[in-house]
Amino acid sequence: MTDHIYWKDGSLYLLDQRALPFKKTYLQCKGLKDIVYAIKSMVVRGAPLIGIVAAYGVALGIQEILASKGRIKDDDIDKICEKLAKTRPTAVNLFWALERMKNAFRQYSNKADMPDLMTDEAIAIHVEDIENNRMLSLYGSELIDDGDTILTHCNAGALATGGYGTALGVIRAAHAGGKKIKVIATETRPYLQGARLTAWELYEEGVDVEIVPDNHVGFLCYNKGIDKVIVGADRIALNGDTANKIGTYMIALCASRYKIPFFVAAPVSTFDRNINNGAYIPIEERDSREVKYIHGKPLTLEAIKARYYSFDITPERYVSNFITEKGIIEKPFKKYIKMLFS
Amino acid sequence: MTDHIYWKDGSLYLLDQRALPFKKTYLQCKGLKDIVYAIKSMVVRGAPLIGIVAAYGVALGIQEILASKGRIKDDDIDKICEKLAKTRPTAVNLFWALERMKNAFRQYSNKADMPDLMTDEAIAIHVEDIENNRMLSLYGSELIDDGDTILTHCNAGALATGGYGTALGVIRAAHAGGKKIKVIATETRPYLQGARLTAWELYEEGVDVEIVPDNHVGFLCYNKGIDKVIVGADRIALNGDTANKIGTYMIALCASRYKIPFFVAAPVSTFDRNINNGAYIPIEERDSREVKYIHGKPLTLEAIKARYYSFDITPERYVSNFITEKGIIEKPFKKYIKMLFS
Repeated sequence: MTDHIYWKDGSLYLLDQRALPFKKTYLQCKGLKDIVYAIKSMVVRGAPLIGIVAAYGVALGIQEILASKGRIKDDDIDKICEKLAKTRPTAVNLFWALERMKNAFRQYSNKADMPDLMTDEAIAIHVEDIENNRMLSLYGSELIDDGDTILTHCNAGALATGGYGTALGVIRAAHAGGKKIKVIATETRPYLQGARLTAWELYEEGVDVEIVPDNHVGFLCYNKGIDKVIVGADRIALNGDTANKIGTYMIALCASRYKIPFFVAAPVSTFDRNINNGAYIPIEERDSREVKYIHGKPLTLEAIKARYYSFDITPERYVSNFITEKGIIEKPFKKYIKMLFS
Repeated sequence: MTDHIYWKDGSLYLLDQRALPFKKTYLQCKGLKDIVYAIKSMVVRGAPLIGIVAAYGVALGIQEILASKGRIKDDDIDKICEKLAKTRPTAVNLFWALERMKNAFRQYSNKADMPDLMTDEAIAIHVEDIENNRMLSLYGSELIDDGDTILTHCNAGALATGGYGTALGVIRAAHAGGKKIKVIATETRPYLQGARLTAWELYEEGVDVEIVPDNHVGFLCYNKGIDKVIVGADRIALNGDTANKIGTYMIALCASRYKIPFFVAAPVSTFDRNINNGAYIPIEERDSREVKYIHGKPLTLEAIKARYYSFDITPERYVSNFITEKGIIEKPFKKYIKMLFS
């Protein structure tokens, strides 16, 4: 489950998540264009993974420029990062990773070695993400009780990150620790990350998992069928307002109605220190054909309109705790989130 | 849009709603078995329509017995109704229609004319349903303002009823009355009644309609994108607790959070005078393959489990008003719902 992204002989290989769990095909990314395509078209998705892939994209971009022009200029990095920054607007890990790559670039004067130095930095980001996930998962697993039924939305698993996962990392760690848990995975329309990726990851891991349509959560809470909710995040504002896969907010409202703990598991790189609350988080709207077609076949008439927002904002009052590699964050979030950066 | 159910030469013809909006094929029902199949396998769906189809099923059952045995016995009606009652458990209109057919059967002593008398009673139920829908829609249209954006879930349209519709009837009447309205239709997984039926009905009618995945409602409410919600119902308890398509409850919670009016449009036959609250309403669980497959293709691995409840219960506190053919029902529902039966 951790071979979904690897670097080999100057190329980045990405498992095409659009074809999972049916086909395991890899996209070989030889240059910046391939990376831009992979992120935009959702060959890869998941906030932490997008950041990691973008970091490798910077390394590939630098490698290409050196190969074609024979030298690297100071502003080459900005042009590369600009292209990558335009791929997807909501997940902040993308911008965080680009910033880190820029800083690394500026540290080194030896431009001839830059491709290797940039690749090393991308690999460091990748490896650190896995370490962070393992750490936050250990912290998070303390919040899980033996016998819990846990609901999760979309995929915040190994496939959404460098490896191990955030929300699914917590579940993985609790399971590995011997806790008997059951997981309900919402299918997550329209891309079905829950049905295709989360259910598959957990099934392979031997965790008891069951898929439900996104519209089932209210009834399951009403029926006392959920003990805890854990989701990942794409961007978290300083006050704790959380952007995550569309549908997260409705789940949080249901959980709140029944006093079911609602946890958000994310590395510190998902917190945006430049944004005070969720109103400033840009929400991506994607092509409505992604809603209207499945397996290449239409679900309704071509003439009928549809709308697809990729994310929504869960106001901080509906979040019980954040789970990070630096520990569990309690309320008041405003106070403790700031401390993550100090 | 009203040719989806008709009686001709001793057969009931049903438009197969599973193939809509792509193919218009009819199932000719010559006997009771065909009707049982049509309801169970969702050739037809929608609480009022299920009641009407079951009524015709009684007529067909009686017709078959007279043809095969040469005479009708007093208890034949019970055996027929028992088979029909087992098709689907939640929509109360089914049991209401069967009760009405039994009462009609007992009124007549002339058993030789019984097939015609039963057919006439089924046609009466059918015609009255359309009249009731037109009447409740007129009442309901008074609740709609010019410029409203209205969210609806599943399909409570002409296709869910004898004709004209309940929730969509209200929208139809407001639109016909010159009010400029916009409709957001949730796609309604797994059967996609919203994307396939509701969007199609409204598109054909010239109403501005847009599909969203079920998980979008929270974000749309948060963004002030919804003025009113109108849904149908499958069974309403005496206190106002409402069974309707799975997902309705989550929508009601979102609407309540933003003080968006939440209307339930349903004929009096959808109110169950035998049930004090929603805890007594049986919720149908259907085959999980209906979640795991679409267009005959799997959405995930065969080995992965799924769950599919057809309906949920919206507690009465989240309903603003009921819209019936006898008028708009205000709170306290307990008091006014009882008056429907007096």
